[in-house]
Amino acid sequence: VSAPVVTFLSDYGYRDEFVGVCHGVIASRCPAARIIDITHGIALGDIHSGALALRAALPHMPAGVHLAVVDPGVGGKRRAIALSTATEGHTLVGPDNGLLVHAAEALGGVRDAYDIAGSPVASRTTTTTFDGRDLFAPVAAALASGTAPGELGKAIAASSLVALELPAARRDGAILLVPVISVDGYGNLELAAFELGTGVLTLELGGHVRDVQIVRAFSDVPPGELLAHVDSRGAPAIAENGGSAAARLGLAPGDLIRVRL
Amino acid sequence: VSAPVVTFLSDYGYRDEFVGVCHGVIASRCPAARIIDITHGIALGDIHSGALALRAALPHMPAGVHLAVVDPGVGGKRRAIALSTATEGHTLVGPDNGLLVHAAEALGGVRDAYDIAGSPVASRTTTTTFDGRDLFAPVAAALASGTAPGELGKAIAASSLVALELPAARRDGAILLVPVISVDGYGNLELAAFELGTGVLTLELGGHVRDVQIVRAFSDVPPGELLAHVDSRGAPAIAENGGSAAARLGLAPGDLIRVRL
Amino acid sequence: VSAPVVTFLSDYGYRDEFVGVCHGVIASRCPAARIIDITHGIALGDIHSGALALRAALPHMPAGVHLAVVDPGVGGKRRAIALSTATEGHTLVGPDNGLLVHAAEALGGVRDAYDIAGSPVASRTTTTTFDGRDLFAPVAAALASGTAPGELGKAIAASSLVALELPAARRDGAILLVPVISVDGYGNLELAAFELGTGVLTLELGGHVRDVQIVRAFSDVPPGELLAHVDSRGAPAIAENGGSAAARLGLAPGDLIRVRL
Repeated sequence: VSAPVVTFLSDYGYRDEFVGVCHGVIASRCPAARIIDITHGIALGDIHSGALALRAALPHMPAGVHLAVVDPGVGGKRRAIALSTATEGHTLVGPDNGLLVHAAEALGGVRDAYDIAGSPVASRTTTTTFDGRDLFAPVAAALASGTAPGELGKAIAASSLVALELPAARRDGAILLVPVISVDGYGNLELAAFELGTGVLTLELGGHVRDVQIVRAFSDVPPGELLAHVDSRGAPAIAENGGSAAARLGLAPGDLIRVRL
Repeated sequence: VSAPVVTFLSDYGYRDEFVGVCHGVIASRCPAARIIDITHGIALGDIHSGALALRAALPHMPAGVHLAVVDPGVGGKRRAIALSTATEGHTLVGPDNGLLVHAAEALGGVRDAYDIAGSPVASRTTTTTFDGRDLFAPVAAALASGTAPGELGKAIAASSLVALELPAARRDGAILLVPVISVDGYGNLELAAFELGTGVLTLELGGHVRDVQIVRAFSDVPPGELLAHVDSRGAPAIAENGGSAAARLGLAPGDLIRVRL
Repeated sequence: VSAPVVTFLSDYGYRDEFVGVCHGVIASRCPAARIIDITHGIALGDIHSGALALRAALPHMPAGVHLAVVDPGVGGKRRAIALSTATEGHTLVGPDNGLLVHAAEALGGVRDAYDIAGSPVASRTTTTTFDGRDLFAPVAAALASGTAPGELGKAIAASSLVALELPAARRDGAILLVPVISVDGYGNLELAAFELGTGVLTLELGGHVRDVQIVRAFSDVPPGELLAHVDSRGAPAIAENGGSAAARLGLAPGDLIRVRL
């Protein structure tokens, strides 16, 4: 039998003890658990980026508990939730702010949802700003230990979960307005879904028209040239071979790229 | 039986191989050990920040060996130490520069102290600048394997340990001068201990007077507003709902906040 | 019996899910594997820095599979390889771009080499930009599970591997021109190999002549002073006690230091 797995994504960063403390809480309560850090470098409070990274990661993870905390509303009225998915053996734990639902879709969709705010395993504490330590990690550890989610919270309707609309491309005459939805650490620009096709992508950027080759690999264009491709998340993307397309084009998440149809 | 635990905090950062090398040394010498990284993002050589993070983290960690290295005096005259604590099952390992003593207090205080500089398990090496690899990790691995600290060093008096005074608030007439003792990755300002009370905190900052609400959760004030609360370490803190109080107020560790009594 | 070990070094950084996804792939395919992260903070696409860090780290690692991905040519014509070494029990996996060969030398040299590009364990995918996930992690997991490298790729000549020349010192009359080969997170300058000797090192820097003491420990000189020493990788290095020599001297990898003989 393999060790129970807890995966962990957050915006806690790498400066403070926050990630380590959550590891300690899980290891104290479920010593057999193996923890896999997905990333803790999500931009602070950026639920969209967290949701996209979690959605991209979970299909590659073993069955287990998936703890995710990007939670600018911590301590407020947002619910705390656990979600089982249609794909057997996966339970997601985190705030009800849209962070989890796209990843749950990638695992077949939400099967059962639970409000875990009043969970009996939560730590008693006078502070309200570290639910990762005091609520989510204890619940994740209990789930990893085999406790049923129904013992850790009360069932709620999946339809009541907070949605998170991801930016979508929209047509404006002969132009497709495509939002940048994410920029990775290499400066590659992930775009909202559209049919990339083959050949050349014609972009209007800052008044200039640019033809960008649609290729399979970065090295299909010379170093320093832009390219379009389907990225590792399966999304259309603009990259620069050996450089940062984001820096080159001055683009960030939310910015619109004008694509000629 | 659970795997022996080694927790690990340092200022080694995430660019170089230093953290990984220490993991390798521990895994080579004690293959059963499970290593929990607390953080390696402590500001370079900042013993104060390291001590505060370690003190905040250890009460949440399983029993085990706690390796901590923020060690600007490496290779010099500072001692290398191992400390057992009043709380059973915990041993701290690191430099004798104040880094460990506050965390040991949080685990009931130092019970026994050992000078491990000449430990028989240390690696022979011609270099003196990486005691994490050559001395502290080997000692941590030996402790995790069940070796008694007395076999790894010679007993010293707990009273001889280097102290680390943390900044304290002090009264100046009708004003309490409160040092910022830490800034976390979100820009929250942790303050030296004082009784926060309830209602409103009146601050004098750069010639301006500001009333800040004392609340329980960030979201108890509107987005973009400052607040005062007891933070996750149990300390009084100034934060901004959805933003960085440190950036907003231009404050850093060591700066003084003037609080009206 | 200990768990099989997979060590992992990359330039994937800490912002995105890339590192976590590779962990997930390995844990899914070889649940018993223990993964040791060496670092994922190698400068983007910097094969030299990756090779130096890997070479410094592997001699401290347990026997196992060593996965390393700094791969600006991903998806292009560069080969993907697995290398067994003269030191028993170690197999390196990564791109054939010079990243692995110096580390293999540190483990006694390459014994057998395999081209794993067409490995039967690789994931089928339409994208070509994340071989860490789709090729290297699956191969590493298969090796950790006990699959022989010969079943994962086809044997190639060790002599056909891409070499990576590291910068070397060279003599110019009474001056030794010594390239900076690496700068660590503390700002210490690692230099190309030369006999450091004892006493004083005389440098010509920006038209100035500086005498730097050759010492064993940072603290052998006063705080704020430069020093020369043999660093933890065994290389000659210039450091500042309590500061950053790189910032102080304005030097970066590739820059030349003029040493008077």
